[in-house]
Amino acid sequence: MTISAPVGPTTVHEDLAARLRAEVGAHAVQDSPSEIYQGDRAVRAPQGTRFVLVLPDDVAGVQATLRVAQETATPVVPRGAGTGLSGGATPTQGAIVLSLERLTAVREIDPVDEVAVVEAGVITADLSTALAPHGFFYAPDPASAAISTIGGNIATNAGGLHCAKYGVTRESVLALEVVLADGTLLRTGHRSLKGVTGLDLTQLLIGSEGTLAVVTSATVRIRPLPVARRTLLARFADSAGAAAGVGAISRSPVRPAATELIDGGTLADIDAHSGSSLARGTDAVLLLELDGYGIGEQTADLTHALEAVGGDVLVIEDEQEAERLWELRRSGRGSGAGGHRLGEDIAVPKSRLAEIFTELAVIGERHGVQTSALAHAGDGNLHPLLAVDREASEAADSSLPPTLLAAADDLVRAAIDLGGTISGEHGIGTSKQGWLDLELSPVSRALQLRLKDAFDPQHLLNPGKAL
Amino acid sequence: MTISAPVGPTTVHEDLAARLRAEVGAHAVQDSPSEIYQGDRAVRAPQGTRFVLVLPDDVAGVQATLRVAQETATPVVPRGAGTGLSGGATPTQGAIVLSLERLTAVREIDPVDEVAVVEAGVITADLSTALAPHGFFYAPDPASAAISTIGGNIATNAGGLHCAKYGVTRESVLALEVVLADGTLLRTGHRSLKGVTGLDLTQLLIGSEGTLAVVTSATVRIRPLPVARRTLLARFADSAGAAAGVGAISRSPVRPAATELIDGGTLADIDAHSGSSLARGTDAVLLLELDGYGIGEQTADLTHALEAVGGDVLVIEDEQEAERLWELRRSGRGSGAGGHRLGEDIAVPKSRLAEIFTELAVIGERHGVQTSALAHAGDGNLHPLLAVDREASEAADSSLPPTLLAAADDLVRAAIDLGGTISGEHGIGTSKQGWLDLELSPVSRALQLRLKDAFDPQHLLNPGKAL
Repeated sequence: MTISAPVGPTTVHEDLAARLRAEVGAHAVQDSPSEIYQGDRAVRAPQGTRFVLVLPDDVAGVQATLRVAQETATPVVPRGAGTGLSGGATPTQGAIVLSLERLTAVREIDPVDEVAVVEAGVITADLSTALAPHGFFYAPDPASAAISTIGGNIATNAGGLHCAKYGVTRESVLALEVVLADGTLLRTGHRSLKGVTGLDLTQLLIGSEGTLAVVTSATVRIRPLPVARRTLLARFADSAGAAAGVGAISRSPVRPAATELIDGGTLADIDAHSGSSLARGTDAVLLLELDGYGIGEQTADLTHALEAVGGDVLVIEDEQEAERLWELRRSGRGSGAGGHRLGEDIAVPKSRLAEIFTELAVIGERHGVQTSALAHAGDGNLHPLLAVDREASEAADSSLPPTLLAAADDLVRAAIDLGGTISGEHGIGTSKQGWLDLELSPVSRALQLRLKDAFDPQHLLNPGKAL
Repeated sequence: MTISAPVGPTTVHEDLAARLRAEVGAHAVQDSPSEIYQGDRAVRAPQGTRFVLVLPDDVAGVQATLRVAQETATPVVPRGAGTGLSGGATPTQGAIVLSLERLTAVREIDPVDEVAVVEAGVITADLSTALAPHGFFYAPDPASAAISTIGGNIATNAGGLHCAKYGVTRESVLALEVVLADGTLLRTGHRSLKGVTGLDLTQLLIGSEGTLAVVTSATVRIRPLPVARRTLLARFADSAGAAAGVGAISRSPVRPAATELIDGGTLADIDAHSGSSLARGTDAVLLLELDGYGIGEQTADLTHALEAVGGDVLVIEDEQEAERLWELRRSGRGSGAGGHRLGEDIAVPKSRLAEIFTELAVIGERHGVQTSALAHAGDGNLHPLLAVDREASEAADSSLPPTLLAAADDLVRAAIDLGGTISGEHGIGTSKQGWLDLELSPVSRALQLRLKDAFDPQHLLNPGKAL
């Protein structure tokens, strides 16, 4: 067989790919990557965006990739599983997309130290699966846990359902192994639960959305599986009533592992698509999980607190029934199926929950938009859904109607006016940058850019995201 | 009455004091401050060190002080109550010592949001006193809680006895109000429990020992008072046995609120000075506090876990007796009273506790130094005490004998060799800087200095400390 001499690289793109192949290995470099790498679950790169995908299978490969990036002044977009909802992993023109998906080792599980050492590409739920035989679990549980990675969770400081009791990702990370923009390896933090030596780089890196360094592994805190669990369903006349229920829990000594508020629109959607009867004539429910010791006393105290503010409380003793309720909760997509839909992620102080639900309805009316919301109510975090019907004549394109964007804008501003935040747990990415100035002062933003400079003077790491 | 014309300032020191009086108010400025401001509980400024003390009574006063500092290029040493154990608040020659002690307002307590907004000068224990009528407490409880301030606790990321369950100071701070080196006010963080907008400046500032900014107030998370408490005392043959007890707790589903390991030397000291019989023939005890729901089940499971590894467990039902035991624990100063004494603060992964106790004994023998230790064993944090007798002929001066310093050096290195840290909770200040390179790589230190530059380009904030 005769093979013609290879044609030399003719474009910057091919040149970059060739160089990466030489440094990281041909098996790790793709210059025409599959479509799935063109964005995350919220934002796609504009058509025609060209990038090189690198999938190193070890830390050395990550370092080599970043060295090539620095030498060629190429932007790098770090990527976990691409399940983000804010466009944080969207490729930019000419960039290297650096996927950590092949770094999947659970390097260590230590029940006495109560830590696990896991690589960035480990799927979050897989860690808890690996921990279960040891009697432990990993507490942070974003809704995406079955498909997102530890590294992505750290990049966004991911939240989830159990944060009011167990904390967000930040509270479960003790130490990091990261690669800096120039390819240098840096270890931060400590394996002991305490440690105060120097500035806390670990904490600064968590939630930095790949703009400061690339996380390759983490030492995370693990927790013992609770001795018992109990699910409660509390029905209220409306969202304001359910919000009062959340306040009643705050004033009680009980701290549920999960406190999910499901509003009328979401309930109607769930009941319609699954044949359930969650709503049963009411317009808001709290779905609650208790765990730990004294589950009977906890149940009694929580029931008492909720009934005192008008809740109709059902204690679910049967485990299968409880699991079904949580599945229904996870299936809740809100009203407006089939139309244009826009999911939001805001948070407010818990005392303002009733007001943000009122605002949501007002905004919906103002813009002629259907509104509904799920909330991780225990930490004030709402996921409203805004929807408008699709015109029959419309093509099924994905661009959102201006009315939906205007409603989202009003909603984010309402959250800020109520003392809240423009993003509870999904991050800023590209999709929320327009609102950054609502929450961060010019002094804060300038300072954050100086910190970015300290880590990444060439601004190669995830440029145009987060900050 | 005739008043002669004031004599103009004749020195830089008086000039600075006059300028501060003009900007902050005469009542807030002292150019010959009382002796208590000359250091903290560990390190005194060298004799003859001259500084101006400023005690602003509001945030505007803090800002004015920092503006004067910047305009005159004067270093600023922020100060809480001066109870630190690492020299973080020690004045330097010509500096402004900026005490936050007059910022004592608890601005707000909100039981529904589960937050309090407190000024930096609030005494930590006073916050819990203010919260108690609302059914809440503030979890971080350094041993100094009755005398130290929230601001100082934030500057050092203070720990305490209840951190394994409730976290260190870091886990209880949601938002900060700080003054930057140039006098600008900056607000960081969020009041909702979740929030991921931008880099987490709050977390970076916590534990930065006054080197990045001056904290004036904090929004802290508060927690419901537990429905029940129970104290247990578990006796073991030796420290290794007690360390095995700590491992047994890790493997159990129980998480005590406090897990204090008291070794033989400390027990002997306590029993000798208080007439107690804590040791009762054994050489190490775990003093444990359980709290929350299901206290009976928790007690049974914990007792079972400790007995399985040879612990002799006593459950203290009587509240007064329990309180007395905790008082005895607090009174434990270790062996070597009357001699030269050096307290340490290291942490190791919990699985290495037995080894660090062995190392402590070996180091003691090597240097002819008496050793004993208390440990917040639930988070691997040890407070060893090193002591040598004072020669009869010796004057009662405070300089430490070289043998004590050599033993401390061996001990800190041993902690690092076991995967631990040079400071669990007291901070670096001036006294631990010599060991920084044991724990932080040159890459990490260089990066931290760049972050310092981003906050404080003139290096006016607490120069020579921490970093």
